[in-house]
Amino acid sequence: MPGTAELTAYLEVQRGPVEEALARAVEAFAGDLASDVAEALEYGVTTGGKRLRPVLCVTAFEACGGSVGEAAYDLAASLELIHAYSLMHDDLPCMDDAALRRGRPTSHRAHGEDATMRAGAALIPAAALQALAACERLGSSAEQGRTVAKALLEAAGAGGMVGGQWLDLLGEGQALGAEELDGLHRRKTGALLQASLVMGGLAAGADQDTVDALREYGAAIGLAFQIADDILDATESAETLGKNPSDIELGKSTYVSLYGLEEARARAKAEVGRAVAALSRVGLEAPMLAALARYVVEREK
Amino acid sequence: MPGTAELTAYLEVQRGPVEEALARAVEAFAGDLASDVAEALEYGVTTGGKRLRPVLCVTAFEACGGSVGEAAYDLAASLELIHAYSLMHDDLPCMDDAALRRGRPTSHRAHGEDATMRAGAALIPAAALQALAACERLGSSAEQGRTVAKALLEAAGAGGMVGGQWLDLLGEGQALGAEELDGLHRRKTGALLQASLVMGGLAAGADQDTVDALREYGAAIGLAFQIADDILDATESAETLGKNPSDIELGKSTYVSLYGLEEARARAKAEVGRAVAALSRVGLEAPMLAALARYVVEREK
Repeated sequence: MPGTAELTAYLEVQRGPVEEALARAVEAFAGDLASDVAEALEYGVTTGGKRLRPVLCVTAFEACGGSVGEAAYDLAASLELIHAYSLMHDDLPCMDDAALRRGRPTSHRAHGEDATMRAGAALIPAAALQALAACERLGSSAEQGRTVAKALLEAAGAGGMVGGQWLDLLGEGQALGAEELDGLHRRKTGALLQASLVMGGLAAGADQDTVDALREYGAAIGLAFQIADDILDATESAETLGKNPSDIELGKSTYVSLYGLEEARARAKAEVGRAVAALSRVGLEAPMLAALARYVVEREK
Repeated sequence: MPGTAELTAYLEVQRGPVEEALARAVEAFAGDLASDVAEALEYGVTTGGKRLRPVLCVTAFEACGGSVGEAAYDLAASLELIHAYSLMHDDLPCMDDAALRRGRPTSHRAHGEDATMRAGAALIPAAALQALAACERLGSSAEQGRTVAKALLEAAGAGGMVGGQWLDLLGEGQALGAEELDGLHRRKTGALLQASLVMGGLAAGADQDTVDALREYGAAIGLAFQIADDILDATESAETLGKNPSDIELGKSTYVSLYGLEEARARAKAEVGRAVAALSRVGLEAPMLAALARYVVEREK
């Protein structure tokens, strides 16, 4: 498995073409918008960040034999467009009312609530159109393109990140049990991470077993990612995180409050193991995916 | 061309299966949502209203030789899901801050801002997934399904109803000229009406000329619809409209402020003529579409 230095270099190398693809997407979709909405869209999409979802998508695509070029990065960027939409809407005053995101003022603080809401909503069809167009350019069949678009739309919608009937319990101030917490995060964080892997595999023409293994890998690192997030929230200061540690302040259920720090760490590690095992089982040689699974729990925020 | 009584009966007959399709959609997508979001989604979708977009879609589908059943109504309902999203978001406090919609409290007044914003956003991927699934059940090819989904996504996004750089001028309090006003409404109202026709034609396997004619018909009735809207706003009271006549209050540019009432009426009628002529040109025998074009300008709100 690649070491930390090699992985860091890989992430650095991937960042360039991912940012370029995002800039192309902004140019393609923002041109027709009123200028405040266009500015909010660009601001929300070009936030920096780890770009984990596009990197996972491209890495899975390549591991499944896909030839990585501009079109693959455009496909990968569609995931980041959905991610950007979710952050922009989550930060709004009627939701988390967050002031900071990655050390900058949130989009609505910088560009207004209405422009942020519109830009966020505009990113959903933009992402789906971008994924469809990228699949065409990758030479995928119409059937493959449709399956890829479905994976993205499902992750972006009621069956994915917007869903979660467990939120009702949180709304009532109840603490969540293990099953509910897993269920909640499988959707909130997991669905889009999982789609990143699945879309990469599908676009590369991977067989069903491989796509299923990528789905399991995605589910496992999705949980690992959230457990790591909760650990970071519990152990780091707002300054380091570049955002407000609102989960703790609000007394929300977290993996740390449920299991304690040590047990949470062990569970994150176990999920990484499950992710790597899923790939081994179908013989998918993907050392960088194994390294990325480990990175998900070892990263700083 | 069918007379008013016949058209009224047609709209009444269509309403039943359209409402059933919308109820199926709510059941399919709301089940996984937190209960407040699910309630807002159902409230926003089951508002009654004319259901003009689904009716246009099914009517175009049938005129192009499609066999109308449950799947066709599911396809048609996808347009109403997008329409519902746009109304829910438009009414929000950070947008129009509307209190009433069709004589009822707006969604955010009844179910809260956060639930309304989330439910509206969830409707976008839901609509696209619903259109894709309906095309599969209609026996459309993957290529046709992709084209139908694209038409819906484009209408729902930056290239359609969210777009409109002319909004900048409005934001600066400037009056719009004829070209800007047409451009604005071609997107704001026209894009989704146009998609209704195009999607119906595409799903029925219509040839390119016919789809182009439906697109022109859609563009023409889209403008006619907006001119009629402006005329209604200028001549009817808030009580009759069931909403706040905010366009007038805000001194926005309207076709009535631009042309005056008589000229606006003449222009609406001319657009109806253009719509009907586009269908005749390709020999599309669709008396009900002709009647619907006329209805668009003669309706009460």
